[in-house]
Amino acid sequence: MDITVVGSGIVGRTVAQGFTSHGHRVTLSSRSPEGHSEWSAETGITVHLPHGALRDADVVINATPGQASIEALTGAGLGEAGSIVVLDLSNPLDFSTGAPRLSTGVDESVGEAIQAAFPVARVVKTLNTVNAGIMTNPGSLSEPTAQFVCGNDEAAKETVVGLLTGVGWEADQIIDLGDLTAARQIERYLMLWLRLMGVLGTAEFNIRLVRS
Amino acid sequence: MDITVVGSGIVGRTVAQGFTSHGHRVTLSSRSPEGHSEWSAETGITVHLPHGALRDADVVINATPGQASIEALTGAGLGEAGSIVVLDLSNPLDFSTGAPRLSTGVDESVGEAIQAAFPVARVVKTLNTVNAGIMTNPGSLSEPTAQFVCGNDEAAKETVVGLLTGVGWEADQIIDLGDLTAARQIERYLMLWLRLMGVLGTAEFNIRLVRS
Repeated sequence: MDITVVGSGIVGRTVAQGFTSHGHRVTLSSRSPEGHSEWSAETGITVHLPHGALRDADVVINATPGQASIEALTGAGLGEAGSIVVLDLSNPLDFSTGAPRLSTGVDESVGEAIQAAFPVARVVKTLNTVNAGIMTNPGSLSEPTAQFVCGNDEAAKETVVGLLTGVGWEADQIIDLGDLTAARQIERYLMLWLRLMGVLGTAEFNIRLVRS
Repeated sequence: MDITVVGSGIVGRTVAQGFTSHGHRVTLSSRSPEGHSEWSAETGITVHLPHGALRDADVVINATPGQASIEALTGAGLGEAGSIVVLDLSNPLDFSTGAPRLSTGVDESVGEAIQAAFPVARVVKTLNTVNAGIMTNPGSLSEPTAQFVCGNDEAAKETVVGLLTGVGWEADQIIDLGDLTAARQIERYLMLWLRLMGVLGTAEFNIRLVRS
Protein backbone atom coordinates (compact mmCIF):
# COMPACT_ATOMS: atom_id res chain seq x y z
CA MET A 1 0.00 0.00 0.00
CA ASP A 2 0.96 3.65 -0.29
CA ILE A 3 1.48 4.90 3.23
CA THR A 4 2.33 8.40 4.38
CA VAL A 5 3.67 8.69 7.90
CA VAL A 6 3.02 12.10 9.45
CA GLY A 7 5.62 12.82 12.11
CA SER A 8 9.35 12.44 11.75
CA GLY A 9 10.31 11.74 15.35
CA ILE A 10 11.72 8.40 16.41
CA VAL A 11 8.29 6.75 16.29
CA GLY A 12 7.49 7.99 12.79
CA ARG A 13 10.88 7.05 11.40
CA THR A 14 10.77 3.62 13.04
CA VAL A 15 7.34 2.66 11.70
CA ALA A 16 8.21 4.12 8.26
CA GLN A 17 11.19 1.78 8.10
CA GLY A 18 9.14 -1.09 9.46
CA PHE A 19 6.35 -0.86 6.91
CA THR A 20 8.90 -0.26 4.13
CA SER A 21 10.70 -3.46 5.06
CA HIS A 22 7.40 -5.30 4.66
CA GLY A 23 7.01 -4.11 1.08
CA HIS A 24 4.84 -1.02 1.43
CA ARG A 25 5.61 2.23 -0.37
CA VAL A 26 6.15 4.66 2.48
CA THR A 27 6.89 8.37 2.51
CA LEU A 28 7.42 10.55 5.54
CA SER A 29 5.87 13.97 6.10
CA SER A 30 8.03 16.37 8.09
CA ARG A 31 8.12 20.11 8.67
CA SER A 32 11.90 19.87 8.43
CA PRO A 33 12.77 17.27 5.77
CA GLU A 34 16.28 18.72 5.48
CA GLY A 35 16.97 17.40 8.98
CA HIS A 36 16.37 13.84 7.77
CA SER A 37 18.39 13.81 4.56
CA GLU A 38 20.94 11.36 5.92
CA TRP A 39 18.24 9.03 7.25
CA SER A 40 16.40 9.33 3.93
CA ALA A 41 19.51 8.39 2.00
CA GLU A 42 20.18 5.42 4.27
CA THR A 43 16.65 4.06 4.20
CA GLY A 44 15.54 5.08 0.71
CA ILE A 45 12.41 6.64 2.26
CA THR A 46 11.44 10.01 0.80
CA VAL A 47 10.79 12.79 3.29
CA HIS A 48 8.37 15.48 2.06
CA LEU A 49 7.16 18.75 3.45
CA PRO A 50 3.60 18.32 4.81
CA HIS A 51 1.83 20.21 2.02
CA GLY A 52 0.48 17.62 -0.41
CA ALA A 53 1.98 14.75 1.54
CA LEU A 54 -1.21 12.67 1.41
CA ARG A 55 -1.83 13.09 -2.31
CA ASP A 56 -1.06 9.48 -3.29
CA ALA A 57 -1.61 7.78 0.05
CA ASP A 58 -3.98 4.89 0.78
CA VAL A 59 -3.29 5.15 4.49
CA VAL A 60 -1.93 7.95 6.65
CA ILE A 61 -0.20 7.00 9.87
CA ASN A 62 -0.37 9.62 12.61
CA ALA A 63 2.94 9.39 14.45
CA THR A 64 2.89 12.85 15.98
CA PRO A 65 2.45 13.60 19.69
CA GLY A 66 -1.24 13.55 20.54
CA GLN A 67 -1.42 17.22 21.49
CA ALA A 68 0.06 18.22 18.11
CA SER A 69 -1.79 15.73 15.92
CA ILE A 70 -4.67 17.79 14.58
CA GLU A 71 -2.40 20.66 13.59
CA ALA A 72 0.08 18.29 11.96
CA LEU A 73 -2.62 16.36 10.07
CA THR A 74 -4.21 19.62 8.94
CA GLY A 75 -0.85 20.74 7.61
CA ALA A 76 -0.45 17.46 5.73
CA GLY A 77 -3.81 18.04 4.02
CA LEU A 78 -5.98 15.49 5.79
CA GLY A 79 -8.93 17.84 5.37
CA GLU A 80 -8.65 17.43 1.59
CA ALA A 81 -7.90 13.69 1.62
CA GLY A 82 -11.48 12.42 1.60
CA SER A 83 -12.23 9.11 3.27
CA ILE A 84 -8.61 8.08 3.67
CA VAL A 85 -7.78 5.56 6.40
CA VAL A 86 -5.99 7.17 9.35
CA LEU A 87 -3.98 4.77 11.47
CA ASP A 88 -3.62 6.77 14.68
CA LEU A 89 -0.87 5.49 16.95
CA SER A 90 -0.42 8.67 18.96
CA ASN A 91 -0.62 9.22 22.70
CA PRO A 92 -1.50 12.48 24.44
CA LEU A 93 1.45 12.45 26.83
CA ASP A 94 2.05 15.76 28.54
CA PHE A 95 5.51 16.14 30.08
CA SER A 96 5.13 19.84 30.88
CA THR A 97 4.66 19.36 34.63
CA GLY A 98 7.42 16.82 35.19
CA ALA A 99 5.96 13.34 35.53
CA PRO A 100 4.06 12.43 32.35
CA ARG A 101 0.30 12.86 32.37
CA LEU A 102 -2.36 12.53 29.71
CA SER A 103 -3.51 15.83 28.25
CA THR A 104 -7.02 14.43 27.72
CA GLY A 105 -9.86 13.93 30.20
CA VAL A 106 -11.26 10.50 30.97
CA ASP A 107 -14.07 10.93 28.44
CA GLU A 108 -11.76 12.13 25.68
CA SER A 109 -9.16 10.66 23.37
CA VAL A 110 -6.92 11.89 20.59
CA GLY A 111 -8.42 9.28 18.29
CA GLU A 112 -11.90 10.73 18.73
CA ALA A 113 -10.61 14.30 18.49
CA ILE A 114 -8.98 13.54 15.15
CA GLN A 115 -12.17 11.88 13.92
CA ALA A 116 -14.21 14.92 14.98
CA ALA A 117 -11.80 17.31 13.27
CA PHE A 118 -11.79 15.27 10.04
CA PRO A 119 -15.25 13.70 9.89
CA VAL A 120 -14.82 12.21 6.42
CA ALA A 121 -11.56 10.45 7.26
CA ARG A 122 -11.76 6.98 8.73
CA VAL A 123 -9.76 6.86 11.94
CA VAL A 124 -8.53 3.59 13.42
CA LYS A 125 -6.69 3.67 16.73
CA THR A 126 -4.03 1.02 17.20
CA LEU A 127 -0.37 0.40 18.04
CA ASN A 128 -0.24 3.15 20.70
CA THR A 129 0.19 0.61 23.53
CA VAL A 130 3.64 -0.63 22.47
CA ASN A 131 7.05 0.87 21.97
CA ALA A 132 7.94 1.99 18.44
CA GLY A 133 10.26 -0.90 17.71
CA ILE A 134 7.55 -3.43 18.52
CA MET A 135 4.89 -1.78 16.34
CA THR A 136 6.17 -3.31 13.12
CA ASN A 137 8.23 -6.07 14.74
CA PRO A 138 6.02 -7.81 17.30
CA GLY A 139 8.13 -10.94 16.83
CA SER A 140 10.87 -9.26 18.86
CA LEU A 141 8.93 -10.31 21.95
CA SER A 142 9.14 -13.86 23.23
CA GLU A 143 5.45 -14.64 22.65
CA PRO A 144 2.64 -13.28 20.45
CA THR A 145 1.05 -10.34 22.26
CA ALA A 146 -2.15 -8.30 22.09
CA GLN A 147 -2.81 -5.46 19.70
CA PHE A 148 -5.97 -3.41 20.13
CA VAL A 149 -7.90 -1.77 17.29
CA CYS A 150 -10.95 0.46 17.41
CA GLY A 151 -12.72 2.71 14.97
CA ASN A 152 -16.10 3.60 13.56
CA ASP A 153 -15.59 2.19 10.04
CA GLU A 154 -15.42 -1.58 9.62
CA ALA A 155 -13.66 -1.53 6.23
CA ALA A 156 -11.01 0.82 7.58
CA LYS A 157 -10.44 -1.51 10.51
CA GLU A 158 -10.05 -4.41 8.08
CA THR A 159 -7.43 -2.45 6.16
CA VAL A 160 -5.53 -1.73 9.36
CA VAL A 161 -5.81 -5.31 10.59
CA GLY A 162 -4.32 -6.37 7.24
CA LEU A 163 -1.38 -4.06 7.85
CA LEU A 164 -0.96 -5.47 11.36
CA THR A 165 -1.02 -9.13 10.37
CA GLY A 166 1.34 -8.27 7.53
CA VAL A 167 4.04 -7.21 9.97
CA GLY A 168 3.52 -10.17 12.27
CA TRP A 169 0.70 -9.43 14.70
CA GLU A 170 -1.19 -12.68 15.19
CA ALA A 171 -4.87 -12.59 14.31
CA ASP A 172 -6.07 -14.15 17.58
CA GLN A 173 -4.29 -11.45 19.57
CA ILE A 174 -5.69 -8.57 17.50
CA ILE A 175 -8.58 -7.38 19.66
CA ASP A 176 -11.29 -5.31 17.98
CA LEU A 177 -12.62 -3.18 20.84
CA GLY A 178 -15.43 -1.72 18.76
CA ASP A 179 -15.97 1.95 18.02
CA LEU A 180 -13.55 4.78 18.54
CA THR A 181 -14.66 5.53 22.11
CA ALA A 182 -12.37 2.64 23.11
CA ALA A 183 -9.46 4.95 22.25
CA ARG A 184 -10.09 6.50 25.69
CA GLN A 185 -9.18 3.23 27.36
CA ILE A 186 -6.16 2.29 25.26
CA GLU A 187 -4.75 5.80 25.44
CA ARG A 188 -5.22 5.86 29.22
CA TYR A 189 -3.55 2.45 29.45
CA LEU A 190 -0.36 4.38 28.67
CA MET A 191 -0.20 5.52 32.28
CA LEU A 192 -0.04 1.86 33.37
CA TRP A 193 2.41 1.17 30.54
CA LEU A 194 4.70 3.95 31.82
CA ARG A 195 4.56 2.53 35.32
CA LEU A 196 5.39 -0.92 33.98
CA MET A 197 8.27 0.47 31.94
CA GLY A 198 9.62 2.05 35.10
CA VAL A 199 9.59 -1.11 37.19
CA LEU A 200 10.65 -3.46 34.36
CA GLY A 201 13.46 -1.14 33.31
CA THR A 202 12.66 -1.59 29.64
CA ALA A 203 10.11 -0.52 27.04
CA GLU A 204 10.44 -3.84 25.27
CA PHE A 205 7.36 -5.57 26.65
CA ASN A 206 3.67 -5.96 25.93
CA ILE A 207 0.65 -7.75 27.29
CA ARG A 208 -0.84 -10.93 25.92
CA LEU A 209 -4.52 -11.72 26.24
CA VAL A 210 -5.12 -15.07 27.95
CA ARG A 211 -8.51 -16.72 27.94
CA SER A 212 -9.73 -19.63 29.99
CA MET B 1 -3.20 -16.97 58.14
CA ASP B 2 -6.25 -15.52 59.83
CA ILE B 3 -8.09 -13.55 57.18
CA THR B 4 -11.22 -11.47 57.53
CA VAL B 5 -13.01 -10.65 54.31
CA VAL B 6 -15.07 -7.47 54.53
CA GLY B 7 -17.90 -7.56 52.01
CA SER B 8 -20.33 -10.42 51.51
CA GLY B 9 -21.19 -9.92 47.86
CA ILE B 10 -20.20 -12.45 45.22
CA VAL B 11 -16.59 -11.23 45.22
CA GLY B 12 -16.20 -11.47 48.98
CA ARG B 13 -17.81 -14.89 49.20
CA THR B 14 -15.75 -16.21 46.28
CA VAL B 15 -12.39 -15.12 47.68
CA ALA B 16 -13.38 -16.29 51.17
CA GLN B 17 -13.98 -19.76 49.77
CA GLY B 18 -10.82 -19.56 47.68
CA PHE B 19 -8.50 -18.71 50.56
CA THR B 20 -10.26 -21.23 52.80
CA SER B 21 -9.62 -23.98 50.28
CA HIS B 22 -5.93 -23.09 50.43
CA GLY B 23 -5.79 -23.66 54.16
CA HIS B 24 -6.31 -20.19 55.61
CA ARG B 25 -8.70 -19.48 58.48
CA VAL B 26 -11.20 -17.12 56.91
CA THR B 27 -14.19 -15.31 58.34
CA LEU B 28 -16.56 -13.00 56.51
CA SER B 29 -17.79 -9.64 57.78
CA SER B 30 -21.29 -8.72 56.68
CA ARG B 31 -23.92 -6.24 57.76
CA SER B 32 -26.50 -8.98 57.21
CA PRO B 33 -24.96 -12.31 58.29
CA GLU B 34 -28.44 -13.84 58.54
CA GLY B 35 -28.68 -13.60 54.73
CA HIS B 36 -25.70 -15.91 54.37
CA SER B 37 -26.54 -18.66 56.84
CA GLU B 38 -27.04 -21.25 54.10
CA TRP B 39 -23.77 -20.32 52.40
CA SER B 40 -22.02 -20.37 55.80
CA ALA B 41 -23.34 -23.84 56.54
CA GLU B 42 -22.27 -25.12 53.12
CA THR B 43 -18.78 -23.66 53.22
CA GLY B 44 -18.04 -23.80 56.93
CA ILE B 45 -17.04 -20.13 56.83
CA THR B 46 -18.31 -18.05 59.76
CA VAL B 47 -20.11 -14.84 58.86
CA HIS B 48 -19.90 -12.13 61.54
CA LEU B 49 -21.41 -8.71 61.98
CA PRO B 50 -18.76 -6.04 61.24
CA HIS B 51 -18.23 -4.93 64.84
CA GLY B 52 -15.10 -6.68 66.10
CA ALA B 53 -14.64 -8.59 62.85
CA LEU B 54 -10.92 -7.80 62.64
CA ARG B 55 -10.10 -8.77 66.21
CA ASP B 56 -8.10 -11.91 65.38
CA ALA B 57 -7.17 -11.13 61.79
CA ASP B 58 -3.66 -11.00 60.33
CA VAL B 59 -5.00 -9.71 57.02
CA VAL B 60 -8.22 -7.95 56.09
CA ILE B 61 -9.42 -8.28 52.52
CA ASN B 62 -11.51 -5.37 51.28
CA ALA B 63 -14.10 -6.89 48.95
CA THR B 64 -16.62 -4.06 49.11
CA PRO B 65 -17.45 -1.70 46.23
CA GLY B 66 -14.87 1.08 46.12
CA GLN B 67 -17.32 3.85 46.92
CA ALA B 68 -18.47 2.03 50.07
CA SER B 69 -15.10 0.77 51.25
CA ILE B 70 -14.11 3.35 53.83
CA GLU B 71 -17.48 3.19 55.56
CA ALA B 72 -17.44 -0.62 55.54
CA LEU B 73 -13.87 -0.84 56.84
CA THR B 74 -14.66 1.71 59.52
CA GLY B 75 -17.62 -0.39 60.59
CA ALA B 76 -15.41 -3.47 60.76
CA GLY B 77 -13.03 -1.65 63.10
CA LEU B 78 -10.06 -1.03 60.85
CA GLY B 79 -9.40 2.18 62.74
CA GLU B 80 -8.67 0.11 65.87
CA ALA B 81 -6.76 -2.67 64.09
CA GLY B 82 -3.30 -1.09 64.18
CA SER B 83 -0.84 -1.91 61.44
CA ILE B 84 -2.89 -4.75 59.97
CA VAL B 85 -2.32 -5.67 56.31
CA VAL B 86 -5.22 -4.57 54.10
CA LEU B 87 -5.48 -6.45 50.81
CA ASP B 88 -7.63 -4.07 48.78
CA LEU B 89 -9.18 -5.69 45.72
CA SER B 90 -11.96 -3.15 45.26
CA ASN B 91 -12.85 -1.05 42.22
CA PRO B 92 -14.67 2.29 42.27
CA LEU B 93 -17.22 1.36 39.62
CA ASP B 94 -20.16 3.74 39.44
CA PHE B 95 -23.21 2.39 37.61
CA SER B 96 -25.50 5.27 38.57
CA THR B 97 -25.49 6.90 35.13
CA GLY B 98 -25.96 3.74 33.07
CA ALA B 99 -22.65 2.73 31.51
CA PRO B 100 -20.10 2.04 34.27
CA ARG B 101 -17.64 4.78 35.10
CA LEU B 102 -15.02 5.18 37.77
CA SER B 103 -16.09 7.33 40.71
CA THR B 104 -12.51 8.55 41.19
CA GLY B 105 -10.53 11.19 39.30
CA VAL B 106 -7.39 10.33 37.36
CA ASP B 107 -5.16 11.36 40.27
CA GLU B 108 -7.15 9.39 42.82
CA SER B 109 -7.69 5.77 43.78
CA VAL B 110 -9.63 3.83 46.37
CA GLY B 111 -6.40 2.22 47.51
CA GLU B 112 -4.90 5.59 48.39
CA ALA B 113 -8.15 6.82 49.94
CA ILE B 114 -8.25 3.82 52.27
CA GLN B 115 -4.61 4.37 53.20
CA ALA B 116 -5.32 8.05 53.93
CA ALA B 117 -8.35 7.18 56.05
CA PHE B 118 -6.45 4.53 58.02
CA PRO B 119 -2.86 5.78 58.09
CA VAL B 120 -1.57 3.08 60.45
CA ALA B 121 -2.95 0.20 58.36
CA ARG B 122 -0.75 -1.16 55.58
CA VAL B 123 -2.72 -1.17 52.34
CA VAL B 124 -1.72 -3.33 49.39
CA LYS B 125 -3.70 -3.06 46.17
CA THR B 126 -3.97 -6.23 44.13
CA LEU B 127 -6.39 -8.67 42.47
CA ASN B 128 -8.76 -5.90 41.30
CA THR B 129 -7.92 -6.50 37.61
CA VAL B 130 -9.44 -9.98 37.40
CA ASN B 131 -12.82 -11.56 37.88
CA ALA B 132 -13.59 -12.98 41.34
CA GLY B 133 -13.24 -16.60 40.27
CA ILE B 134 -9.73 -16.01 38.96
CA MET B 135 -8.49 -14.20 42.10
CA THR B 136 -7.86 -17.39 44.05
CA ASN B 137 -7.81 -19.74 41.05
CA PRO B 138 -5.51 -18.22 38.42
CA GLY B 139 -4.88 -21.73 37.09
CA SER B 140 -8.36 -21.64 35.54
CA LEU B 141 -6.81 -19.63 32.70
CA SER B 142 -4.84 -21.40 29.99
CA GLU B 143 -1.53 -19.70 30.82
CA PRO B 144 0.01 -17.98 33.85
CA THR B 145 -1.08 -14.32 33.84
CA ALA B 146 -0.07 -11.05 35.43
CA GLN B 147 -1.02 -9.91 38.91
CA PHE B 148 -0.14 -6.37 39.98
CA VAL B 149 0.67 -5.34 43.54
CA CYS B 150 1.41 -1.92 44.92
CA GLY B 151 1.64 -0.42 48.38
CA ASN B 152 3.78 1.73 50.62
CA ASP B 153 4.96 -1.00 53.03
CA GLU B 154 7.39 -3.60 51.73
CA ALA B 155 6.69 -6.18 54.43
CA ALA B 156 2.95 -5.91 53.79
CA LYS B 157 3.55 -6.47 50.08
CA GLU B 158 5.62 -9.55 50.91
CA THR B 159 2.76 -10.90 53.00
CA VAL B 160 0.32 -10.33 50.14
CA VAL B 161 2.66 -11.80 47.55
CA GLY B 162 2.88 -14.88 49.76
CA LEU B 163 -0.90 -15.16 49.72
CA LEU B 164 -0.90 -14.76 45.92
CA THR B 165 1.73 -17.39 45.22
CA GLY B 166 -0.03 -19.66 47.68
CA VAL B 167 -3.16 -19.74 45.51
CA GLY B 168 -1.22 -20.21 42.28
CA TRP B 169 -0.09 -16.83 40.96
CA GLU B 170 3.34 -17.36 39.45
CA ALA B 171 6.13 -15.25 40.93
CA ASP B 172 7.45 -14.01 37.58
CA GLN B 173 4.01 -12.66 36.69
CA ILE B 174 3.50 -10.87 40.01
CA ILE B 175 4.45 -7.31 39.13
CA ASP B 176 5.35 -4.98 41.98
CA LEU B 177 4.42 -1.55 40.62
CA GLY B 178 5.87 0.29 43.60
CA ASP B 179 4.00 2.57 45.93
CA LEU B 180 0.26 2.94 46.27
CA THR B 181 -0.06 5.68 43.66
CA ALA B 182 -0.01 2.82 41.10
CA ALA B 183 -3.50 1.97 42.33
CA ARG B 184 -4.67 4.83 40.08
CA GLN B 185 -3.48 2.94 37.03
CA ILE B 186 -4.69 -0.54 37.94
CA GLU B 187 -8.07 0.77 39.06
CA ARG B 188 -8.43 2.77 35.83
CA TYR B 189 -7.44 -0.33 33.84
CA LEU B 190 -10.90 -1.60 34.81
CA MET B 191 -12.41 0.56 32.09
CA LEU B 192 -10.33 -1.30 29.50
CA TRP B 193 -11.16 -4.57 31.26
CA LEU B 194 -14.89 -3.82 30.95
CA ARG B 195 -14.48 -3.08 27.26
CA LEU B 196 -12.56 -6.34 26.79
CA MET B 197 -15.22 -8.27 28.68
CA GLY B 198 -17.82 -6.82 26.34
CA VAL B 199 -16.07 -7.83 23.12
CA LEU B 200 -14.78 -11.17 24.42
CA GLY B 201 -18.19 -12.08 25.84
CA THR B 202 -16.65 -13.42 29.04
CA ALA B 203 -15.05 -12.21 32.26
CA GLU B 204 -12.76 -15.24 32.32
CA PHE B 205 -9.62 -13.66 30.89
CA ASN B 206 -6.54 -11.80 32.02
CA ILE B 207 -3.39 -10.30 30.59
CA ARG B 208 0.05 -11.86 30.69
CA LEU B 209 3.19 -9.78 30.72
CA VAL B 210 5.53 -10.69 27.85
CA ARG B 211 9.09 -9.47 27.75
CA SER B 212 11.55 -9.54 24.86
